[in-house]
Amino acid sequence: MKFKIKSNYFAKGINIVSKALSTKTPMPILKSIKISTSNQGITLMASDSNITIKYFLPTEDHDTTKIFVEEEGEAAVPGRLMLDMLKKVTDENIEIALYENKFIKVNFGHSDYTLNCLDVREYPDISLISAENPIPINIADLNELIKQTSISISLSENRPILTGINFKLENQMLTCIATDSYRLSQKMIQLDNNTSEPLNIVIPGKSLIELEKILSGMSGNVELHSTPNIVSFKINNLTFQSRLLDGNYPETSRLIPKEFGLTTEFNRSELIHVIDRVSLLSREGATNIIKFDIYDEKTIVSLDSPEVGRVVEELHSTSQEGSPIRIGFNSKYLLDALKVLESEVIKIQFTGEVRPFILKTDDDSVIQLILPVRIE
Amino acid sequence: MKFKIKSNYFAKGINIVSKALSTKTPMPILKSIKISTSNQGITLMASDSNITIKYFLPTEDHDTTKIFVEEEGEAAVPGRLMLDMLKKVTDENIEIALYENKFIKVNFGHSDYTLNCLDVREYPDISLISAENPIPINIADLNELIKQTSISISLSENRPILTGINFKLENQMLTCIATDSYRLSQKMIQLDNNTSEPLNIVIPGKSLIELEKILSGMSGNVELHSTPNIVSFKINNLTFQSRLLDGNYPETSRLIPKEFGLTTEFNRSELIHVIDRVSLLSREGATNIIKFDIYDEKTIVSLDSPEVGRVVEELHSTSQEGSPIRIGFNSKYLLDALKVLESEVIKIQFTGEVRPFILKTDDDSVIQLILPVRIE
Repeated sequence: MKFKIKSNYFAKGINIVSKALSTKTPMPILKSIKISTSNQGITLMASDSNITIKYFLPTEDHDTTKIFVEEEGEAAVPGRLMLDMLKKVTDENIEIALYENKFIKVNFGHSDYTLNCLDVREYPDISLISAENPIPINIADLNELIKQTSISISLSENRPILTGINFKLENQMLTCIATDSYRLSQKMIQLDNNTSEPLNIVIPGKSLIELEKILSGMSGNVELHSTPNIVSFKINNLTFQSRLLDGNYPETSRLIPKEFGLTTEFNRSELIHVIDRVSLLSREGATNIIKFDIYDEKTIVSLDSPEVGRVVEELHSTSQEGSPIRIGFNSKYLLDALKVLESEVIKIQFTGEVRPFILKTDDDSVIQLILPVRIE
Repeated sequence: MKFKIKSNYFAKGINIVSKALSTKTPMPILKSIKISTSNQGITLMASDSNITIKYFLPTEDHDTTKIFVEEEGEAAVPGRLMLDMLKKVTDENIEIALYENKFIKVNFGHSDYTLNCLDVREYPDISLISAENPIPINIADLNELIKQTSISISLSENRPILTGINFKLENQMLTCIATDSYRLSQKMIQLDNNTSEPLNIVIPGKSLIELEKILSGMSGNVELHSTPNIVSFKINNLTFQSRLLDGNYPETSRLIPKEFGLTTEFNRSELIHVIDRVSLLSREGATNIIKFDIYDEKTIVSLDSPEVGRVVEELHSTSQEGSPIRIGFNSKYLLDALKVLESEVIKIQFTGEVRPFILKTDDDSVIQLILPVRIE
């Protein structure tokens, strides 16, 4: 294997696939990026056995020759090192050649690297799936689905299914749900011109967070391919594949209240500001339970921490309709939800002191739900 | 104790003294900032028992009343919390009052904090020293002395004296030296109009690094006061006091070579770029020893790492006079020295393969010395 390539073109590809590189793995070969060259271009692949990313760099890009393949072949190159090295290359061209299946030479400018490689024949054979009827999703929509729901993914492995995001497609409506059983996020997207079969899968949250990073800044549609165990997102030369989580996602629709005893509206930045400031005491102390006392057009936010002290702030609500309430909850959950709900006005709707409350914006397709805690 | 104060004025003072707050301490009171109010203004003090910082905020500043003292007194307020809280205050005024020597109330806008306090009478009595003949030092000069030498402070407690910077004053010349016994940094400053006694003290590196942070951006002179165990830097309303290290600093003047077999000159940014890139392999592998081979107008930089591979780069020297050399050394030491030597041209002078070499700029007052390692 031997080729010359424009260094920034190569760096872009290595950067994308490196998101799937293993850091800790019982298989050292998975710390490598697999490079395969042909006359059409070069293919990069990395995998941590949960996520696999394949990226194809064509020889010609925008009518410019970006790659000169001198000798076809394959190699498994040290991934992290290639990534870090390419960040420091200022020369336009870079030459890469494999010797004896044992080391690669990387040359640019006055630099001459000889890097030890593992034998590419040890690289596991990862098959990339393809569905007959892939589901097209707009990239901006998919990123919004991930951003709105990923805050509620469970970080605990107690119930592994909750570490994923549930993707449900029914009657052209794609619904994404995540819950760690203390809060829940739900976002829906109407798919256009779609005749796909119903879908109900759980994709690991970590995979989707990496996918969102890669897709941000891209536009157009991505294709969702799924099989019983694997999901794959394809766009142009990029394939992002993830294993699915096993098991049934809990039925959550009944958790979301439909009727409310109190509906309030706040200015988002003021709300963030106050909660953030009140939460200072929780960072120093042991509790992060804040209280909302809503009555007589007032919203009093307070936090008591026996070790640190007590804070009381008055928050201005732009609208308030219904019965007074006194409710306690984890301030972090509220801040997380407010960070992703990008709207000037935030509506918070309460049902009761021990019943979940929800945050919404003008956009009805997204709901952030938080379970309160009992307070004295 | 009760006062009103402009919040940004207070925040500036709290920010400065907080640099001396203890994070881990057997004395919980040292996590507090001591506030003392009088008609003239308020005094803030914090100490971690090594460093003590006192800062006085006068009632009037630039002909504006910044503080209204309603009740004189003292309090020990939670330092970290006050610092964090003040970062989040957007209101112009803040009101602080002590109750029952047990808690303070902090009020601004619609916020009402009640914070637990320790009894200020438990705060240790820290005396601030004052010398009869303090040494005036220009702040920019002092910051440069610290910046140039602090890279060579020892991080190991094996020889505690080497964790400090040696300040020596003789015949109006202030010399600062730091060495961790693998490298040495020396910077000299000529003091004007100074009739001070000779001085030879060792100030903890950590103290000086904090001092440099506080002084950066200030101008004018700072006064150095010293007693056998304590040094104090005073400027306007600020006192920064540190204990001194006990013991004699090693005599280092004979370590610095005066005659050289080879003198080379490099462009600084190119040199940094190449060393940085070659060092990539050291981050992945076990060794960070790079080699310079200088001969026939060439400088070959290389690094061998049995696990990772080998890199060879050719570096362009702008001038080269003397005999060829092949020398190995820790690349981190060279990068550290290059980061603080801010000059387009860097002169490196060698004496022999196992003898220290030095880095210089056009400015003769600073020397960075590195000990090589034996290479095969």
